[in-house]
Amino acid sequence: MELLEKVRAGKITPEQGLDKLKNLPFEDLGFARVDHHRALRQGFPEVIFAPGKKPEQVVAIVKSLLRQKSNVLVTRSNQETFDKVRKLTKKAQFHDAARAISIVQDTKVYGDGTIYIVCAGTSDIPVAEEAALTARIMGNRVETTFDVGVAGIHRLLNIREALTQASVVVVVAGMEGALASVVGGLLSVPVIAVPTSIGYGSSFGGLSSLLAMLNSCSSNVVVVNIDNGFGAGYVASLINRKRKNA
Amino acid sequence: MELLEKVRAGKITPEQGLDKLKNLPFEDLGFARVDHHRALRQGFPEVIFAPGKKPEQVVAIVKSLLRQKSNVLVTRSNQETFDKVRKLTKKAQFHDAARAISIVQDTKVYGDGTIYIVCAGTSDIPVAEEAALTARIMGNRVETTFDVGVAGIHRLLNIREALTQASVVVVVAGMEGALASVVGGLLSVPVIAVPTSIGYGSSFGGLSSLLAMLNSCSSNVVVVNIDNGFGAGYVASLINRKRKNA
Amino acid sequence: MELLEKVRAGKITPEQGLDKLKNLPFEDLGFARVDHHRALRQGFPEVIFAPGKKPEQVVAIVKSLLRQKSNVLVTRSNQETFDKVRKLTKKAQFHDAARAISIVQDTKVYGDGTIYIVCAGTSDIPVAEEAALTARIMGNRVETTFDVGVAGIHRLLNIREALTQASVVVVVAGMEGALASVVGGLLSVPVIAVPTSIGYGSSFGGLSSLLAMLNSCSSNVVVVNIDNGFGAGYVASLINRKRKNA
Amino acid sequence: MELLEKVRAGKITPEQGLDKLKNLPFEDLGFARVDHHRALRQGFPEVIFAPGKKPEQVVAIVKSLLRQKSNVLVTRSNQETFDKVRKLTKKAQFHDAARAISIVQDTKVYGDGTIYIVCAGTSDIPVAEEAALTARIMGNRVETTFDVGVAGIHRLLNIREALTQASVVVVVAGMEGALASVVGGLLSVPVIAVPTSIGYGSSFGGLSSLLAMLNSCSSNVVVVNIDNGFGAGYVASLINRKRKNA
Amino acid sequence: MELLEKVRAGKITPEQGLDKLKNLPFEDLGFARVDHHRALRQGFPEVIFAPGKKPEQVVAIVKSLLRQKSNVLVTRSNQETFDKVRKLTKKAQFHDAARAISIVQDTKVYGDGTIYIVCAGTSDIPVAEEAALTARIMGNRVETTFDVGVAGIHRLLNIREALTQASVVVVVAGMEGALASVVGGLLSVPVIAVPTSIGYGSSFGGLSSLLAMLNSCSSNVVVVNIDNGFGAGYVASLINRKRKNA
Amino acid sequence: MELLEKVRAGKITPEQGLDKLKNLPFEDLGFARVDHHRALRQGFPEVIFAPGKKPEQVVAIVKSLLRQKSNVLVTRSNQETFDKVRKLTKKAQFHDAARAISIVQDTKVYGDGTIYIVCAGTSDIPVAEEAALTARIMGNRVETTFDVGVAGIHRLLNIREALTQASVVVVVAGMEGALASVVGGLLSVPVIAVPTSIGYGSSFGGLSSLLAMLNSCSSNVVVVNIDNGFGAGYVASLINRKRKNA
Amino acid sequence: MELLEKVRAGKITPEQGLDKLKNLPFEDLGFARVDHHRALRQGFPEVIFAPGKKPEQVVAIVKSLLRQKSNVLVTRSNQETFDKVRKLTKKAQFHDAARAISIVQDTKVYGDGTIYIVCAGTSDIPVAEEAALTARIMGNRVETTFDVGVAGIHRLLNIREALTQASVVVVVAGMEGALASVVGGLLSVPVIAVPTSIGYGSSFGGLSSLLAMLNSCSSNVVVVNIDNGFGAGYVASLINRKRKNA
Amino acid sequence: MELLEKVRAGKITPEQGLDKLKNLPFEDLGFARVDHHRALRQGFPEVIFAPGKKPEQVVAIVKSLLRQKSNVLVTRSNQETFDKVRKLTKKAQFHDAARAISIVQDTKVYGDGTIYIVCAGTSDIPVAEEAALTARIMGNRVETTFDVGVAGIHRLLNIREALTQASVVVVVAGMEGALASVVGGLLSVPVIAVPTSIGYGSSFGGLSSLLAMLNSCSSNVVVVNIDNGFGAGYVASLINRKRKNA
Repeated sequence: MELLEKVRAGKITPEQGLDKLKNLPFEDLGFARVDHHRALRQGFPEVIFAPGKKPEQVVAIVKSLLRQKSNVLVTRSNQETFDKVRKLTKKAQFHDAARAISIVQDTKVYGDGTIYIVCAGTSDIPVAEEAALTARIMGNRVETTFDVGVAGIHRLLNIREALTQASVVVVVAGMEGALASVVGGLLSVPVIAVPTSIGYGSSFGGLSSLLAMLNSCSSNVVVVNIDNGFGAGYVASLINRKRKNA
Repeated sequence: MELLEKVRAGKITPEQGLDKLKNLPFEDLGFARVDHHRALRQGFPEVIFAPGKKPEQVVAIVKSLLRQKSNVLVTRSNQETFDKVRKLTKKAQFHDAARAISIVQDTKVYGDGTIYIVCAGTSDIPVAEEAALTARIMGNRVETTFDVGVAGIHRLLNIREALTQASVVVVVAGMEGALASVVGGLLSVPVIAVPTSIGYGSSFGGLSSLLAMLNSCSSNVVVVNIDNGFGAGYVASLINRKRKNA
Repeated sequence: MELLEKVRAGKITPEQGLDKLKNLPFEDLGFARVDHHRALRQGFPEVIFAPGKKPEQVVAIVKSLLRQKSNVLVTRSNQETFDKVRKLTKKAQFHDAARAISIVQDTKVYGDGTIYIVCAGTSDIPVAEEAALTARIMGNRVETTFDVGVAGIHRLLNIREALTQASVVVVVAGMEGALASVVGGLLSVPVIAVPTSIGYGSSFGGLSSLLAMLNSCSSNVVVVNIDNGFGAGYVASLINRKRKNA
Repeated sequence: MELLEKVRAGKITPEQGLDKLKNLPFEDLGFARVDHHRALRQGFPEVIFAPGKKPEQVVAIVKSLLRQKSNVLVTRSNQETFDKVRKLTKKAQFHDAARAISIVQDTKVYGDGTIYIVCAGTSDIPVAEEAALTARIMGNRVETTFDVGVAGIHRLLNIREALTQASVVVVVAGMEGALASVVGGLLSVPVIAVPTSIGYGSSFGGLSSLLAMLNSCSSNVVVVNIDNGFGAGYVASLINRKRKNA
Repeated sequence: MELLEKVRAGKITPEQGLDKLKNLPFEDLGFARVDHHRALRQGFPEVIFAPGKKPEQVVAIVKSLLRQKSNVLVTRSNQETFDKVRKLTKKAQFHDAARAISIVQDTKVYGDGTIYIVCAGTSDIPVAEEAALTARIMGNRVETTFDVGVAGIHRLLNIREALTQASVVVVVAGMEGALASVVGGLLSVPVIAVPTSIGYGSSFGGLSSLLAMLNSCSSNVVVVNIDNGFGAGYVASLINRKRKNA
Repeated sequence: MELLEKVRAGKITPEQGLDKLKNLPFEDLGFARVDHHRALRQGFPEVIFAPGKKPEQVVAIVKSLLRQKSNVLVTRSNQETFDKVRKLTKKAQFHDAARAISIVQDTKVYGDGTIYIVCAGTSDIPVAEEAALTARIMGNRVETTFDVGVAGIHRLLNIREALTQASVVVVVAGMEGALASVVGGLLSVPVIAVPTSIGYGSSFGGLSSLLAMLNSCSSNVVVVNIDNGFGAGYVASLINRKRKNA
Repeated sequence: MELLEKVRAGKITPEQGLDKLKNLPFEDLGFARVDHHRALRQGFPEVIFAPGKKPEQVVAIVKSLLRQKSNVLVTRSNQETFDKVRKLTKKAQFHDAARAISIVQDTKVYGDGTIYIVCAGTSDIPVAEEAALTARIMGNRVETTFDVGVAGIHRLLNIREALTQASVVVVVAGMEGALASVVGGLLSVPVIAVPTSIGYGSSFGGLSSLLAMLNSCSSNVVVVNIDNGFGAGYVASLINRKRKNA
Repeated sequence: MELLEKVRAGKITPEQGLDKLKNLPFEDLGFARVDHHRALRQGFPEVIFAPGKKPEQVVAIVKSLLRQKSNVLVTRSNQETFDKVRKLTKKAQFHDAARAISIVQDTKVYGDGTIYIVCAGTSDIPVAEEAALTARIMGNRVETTFDVGVAGIHRLLNIREALTQASVVVVVAGMEGALASVVGGLLSVPVIAVPTSIGYGSSFGGLSSLLAMLNSCSSNVVVVNIDNGFGAGYVASLINRKRKNA
């Protein structure tokens, strides 16, 4: 609407208006069209999914993003790429457990409550850590408890009270993914379930936990892709975000 | 904790304490153990998933639930069951498009903002209506627009501004499910994607849209089971719920 | 070994010996070769899986089996077939919930302990009843509790003590099948998990619960085919059977 | 019940009671919450599934478990991890064929009868050995015969007599998994079938034998996950365990 | 080659030659291009697969085929179509168990040895009968034994001697399809395995037996499509056919 | 661009401009947002996919579309719906073989060459007819030959010359879908392959032909959804369309 | 037809005629039967799919092809093979991004309009480059824009005008493959969709985008195999080819 | 029968009789039970499937087998194993293309006619060579032609005459597997189809060709497992074997 107003006011020609609309929001690196759009929304990080990109490509995108003042997150990355990114800025940090690079430029808290992240087994930790890092970089208080699988349900009941204090809970689990349903049944807040590829044989790369979570009898469970810790942390942050009106 | 306190205070014996803990929250109908637990949480409806239950069983469960003062929702039901439920209470209503029975006893608004529900095609409407009814019965303002598939993207762009006002958006789509990604890309609030079984051939009963939604490149998309309009409306309501602290 | 002994002793010719070995254990009805082998093992019922057999075929097999003194069980049957079987013997009973016909001729108790059968939802009851009927007809004490899904885990914890008394537990569940893992985690006896086809969308006819149960993190869980209540009741009976040595 | 009694008797405060319930059964190592719960049940080993855990993590868990006096089993492990575990205790042994580490501290026999383990081919031996080791470490007499596939059925008939003496039989087979049905048909004890990933082409990583075993026409067959020798040995041990009452 | 010779000899023009090559072998009915090609090969029936064709279409094709003197077989047909075909010729017969119509005009024996057809259960009989009818109509001696499933392997061993006399064996089985491997292991002639859709749950419409048969450890087993009794009978006939040279 | 020009010229206000952009291209029927956008492109029909829509809904959409002067096509429809549509206009025709309703208002020829449509078997005809009707209603010359499956390849070679004259060929085939590869190999024009759900057993509802066509070794083959005759006819029309420049 | 004419005219004997027909179109290298058939059609490249062929085999085929004057393309190749091919001809070029070797001997433009190739993400570039190279080597004007995924739909709208100028568009996308539907909805020319294996978890090696594209609600979308950039470029070239008549 | 005769005649005791029956046919190596049963049937090779067996295990089995005078075949083997086998006997040969070791001790011809083996592409050659080697070692005349895929069908028609002379044909093809149907349609002898894992994307490891072959519209096609060249060569040999009666 604003753009058309400017055109009417003669401040810009229609051609300029259209050009603005088209050119502003991204920068064309040839192999990538870097979106600077999100930077306009406070508290949203710029995110690069590293697999399939060469280290030099990641570095070039990071360089372009650093012109904004928002936080930057590189997921599924490695030490080699980090070493290259590190040369761009001292703020870059490598998170081994989460396999991610972060560059924090904005430390404001944007979240209202607490995001609680649990995972079923030790092997699920990388995915849970990715979710936690994402939620933290988006300005949230995050709590985590790992290895609370349903085979020893007392370990889960032990943190039940803490879970009920959270405004949203992320459940990370492979194998049969039952943890999502059990946690969902205990709570009345949204539960974001992340199936993982942990398992063997008929887990079929995470299919077993994915299907289990999609078919959860707990009505408050929603699901993201297998191993998608980032997505879970991202949506948890959106849910936990302070209301404009509040 | 309260229970143990009462035991210590000698108000109830330990045996009574344990009995209370076990017996209070549900009523055993033999074929069903009706949960009265949720009634304690304001604004949560009692929900019966009708398939696989005989009309008499649905009626018996409804009867048990009516002792609470919360709203009741029977999903995937039909006229025959409704006729029987109607005899229990005049408040019962049948929602043809949503294939659901509602009994409204609590009309308070529990939601902060608006829940916007869109669907891709005419055939997706029943699932979208189920989501809308669920959200309404849980005390939310709901807006809907149907038939905004991506093949004619101007129909979607037409409601873009309205969508950005919502606090959470539900996207219902079958076939290739691309609508979830496109809507997700336009917004910065959580998007709950509901794949539907609409399609033929290689849609494999909704598998195509389910996989598309799980693999969405829009980070704010979470997914529920195929055709699960109820679940989407339920979680949308939890996200939209007023904060205790706010 | 016995047969060869008789041959050596000249009591029967080798030809007769071979004929005996081949012809004894079954009766050829043309469309079926009825096995009278099991009748030799006390407490084993003769079982007919009805689907794909015409009522007359079922009747003919029952007739052949009645020459033995063991119990007879017809699974996945219906009223029409029952009416025809009923004419053969007044002992025939139809079990509506279990969709089965039983003919009890041997009421001896063969089981040591108790077999406990639980199911997750009302819609799972037919499969659970089939398991219960099978276990009872094989001479076991059977206890059942239905509708103890994990979304309201207090309903399950309510019967925990009773479950720990059982010598083997059968868990029947559709959707995400999480109940098997949770029950398995609470107990130290074998748990036989029966996935059911209850569910919709991505449950893919029971695949979701089947995979969940196969991938259970509780080590004491074994699995039978989707909806195979009979198989679960059968193996539970074998496990519960009195030891020869004891 | 005991806990509540103690509370009533004033021996412990309700707060202490709740704390006890929550804190006793596991030790929090950060990346793992080690369950000391099972140690209370005689004859149950502590088990660590090694994949996805770093050698140091395995060592830390073993160290925690050694405070109990039960046996310890590390499955799917390797020489590198063993070398580290070996430094904790001289009792540690590496079982090459079973790819497992055992630490035996309790050599009591808990089983009544014999567990017989057969496998179809030479390539199935590692899974069969894992089952055998698990059953032995849980205090059972175990017999094994390998390479008795149905293509040369005389090799199986050769051990038929020995099989009938077992109280429970474990059948390990890849490819078409027919061995489970054939063995099941010969016996009247429970048969635990372990599909393996041995095969190529349309075996699809063990799917062919998994489906075959789940669809076995022998009623005494139950199934565990593909390659899950441990699970089969574990449940076989539970079935073979001496009855309290006997 | 012959055609080109005639062209060179001037007996037909090149145009005529090409026309002959193109037009001779089939008759165009609009909805079908009926192949009269096979009639030239002695002992080959004309076959119509009925599903998806209207009764009138089947009748029209039969009418066209009757101009040849070969046998005609209509598979997967029904009484309604038979009644219409019967009006064309009194030779038409309906085979209820095989769900097929046959018209026999050539009763010569083309097969050298015997084709033996076995099936695992009563429900597999229609597919086995289709195979038997196909083999008979193609001029073979056929023997059949039904209900010899591996759960009672003595029923199979009972006919072992007879099986070894056959020149080719067809094995029809649903569920886990183990019968193919066991029969294959007993014999040194080709075994044609027909998986059937008999089963439930994880048989997935015959997938379980199909995969089992494809992965058979018996090297003499080949496979046709699920429920394809016709194909098995057809290839068995080709294998059993008298050698030209012999 | 035009719209912005009008705004600059003061002919319309920016608000009006935006409204125009949003409101013009479709009509909101509540359950459907009818697109009048395509009508602007000459020779493009308005298409309604009937499944999942009630007859009244189809009629309402047709009514809205008739305001345009383009042709209308209702696919996967039936006699009942046709009877209702017929009341709107005498131009409506029902095509039994194609299961479609057409309303022709524009008979101009838009295509350059000929579209040739072949199918493998009699049962594939409905899908082939849907493709042919679509191509005809979009203004193309269409030729068809049915029942040219590869098992009798001379039937195909018979029309080879005619095929080479087409500017684009549509191949419709179920079962193993080999026809697409064979036709593709004979020609140097684009071949649009339509897999059909014709088949049984391991055709898995058309999966076998779909995969075969996607994996075609003929480089000129592209694929549409199973049974999607409409889509094939539509794209064939686009390919055959007269070039603006020509 | 020509051949038969020559026979009639006595210019060649029938034997020679048949020999010509059989021997001309390919050269037998033992491991490959190189087709020289396509060389007859102007503008068609000779293509070698490298995987599964040894470098020496690729070289031998290239050598055989170079006798023709058409362009040569080796797809899915590598530097090692290129080094060997380079020795045959200086014209050989290696295209790193497209993983292909080209040998250009014919630079004529055979295409009428422009082929536009877009891809959704940076990781999809190799497939898009393969399509572009194929189209270029077949004599077409090609434009490309990469990284225009639907999550930031403004990046796509930015090139909308350019897209509408193309005569055919290739869309390359992994993950949820929504780009094909969105682009399809914007245009009225054929869109060739190439699903890629880019993604993780439930993308199942490209299955998610493949199914999405096959189920596209945009009628102008056709699909090729996962990662088949070559096929897309090839068919795009056929569509863009100059009409004989025009 | 013979054994029982000997028992009756008093030549051996029943115990000895039973022992003979059990012990004769195999030798127990611990990790393998080597079958010497087949050696009794002239012309049958001893076969070892190498994957999953250590080189030493293969050598030990070969050593045991060499006591028989039949040929030995080790499939899916490698140079390392060959070097060890070579030390046992100079007769050992390594077949690089077929990835197999052969030891020929019996060069008699057992086959009546010729076995013809064709494959679709260069990459399918290893599987085709395995089939050819198997057939040769079993005493058959074998002819092969490689790279006759249907995309250039003239290459196939070129060998049509030769194919019609064979008594059985083996067709090896990956990708869409159409070659089996086309070859099947040209011939009236049995065709054994071997799907291969050659392909990419939606070939899903050979699934596409497997399904295509199972769904072949040519009635004379039977199928073996993906890449199972050995099985195809083996059954082809059985079919080609000289008739006892002839």
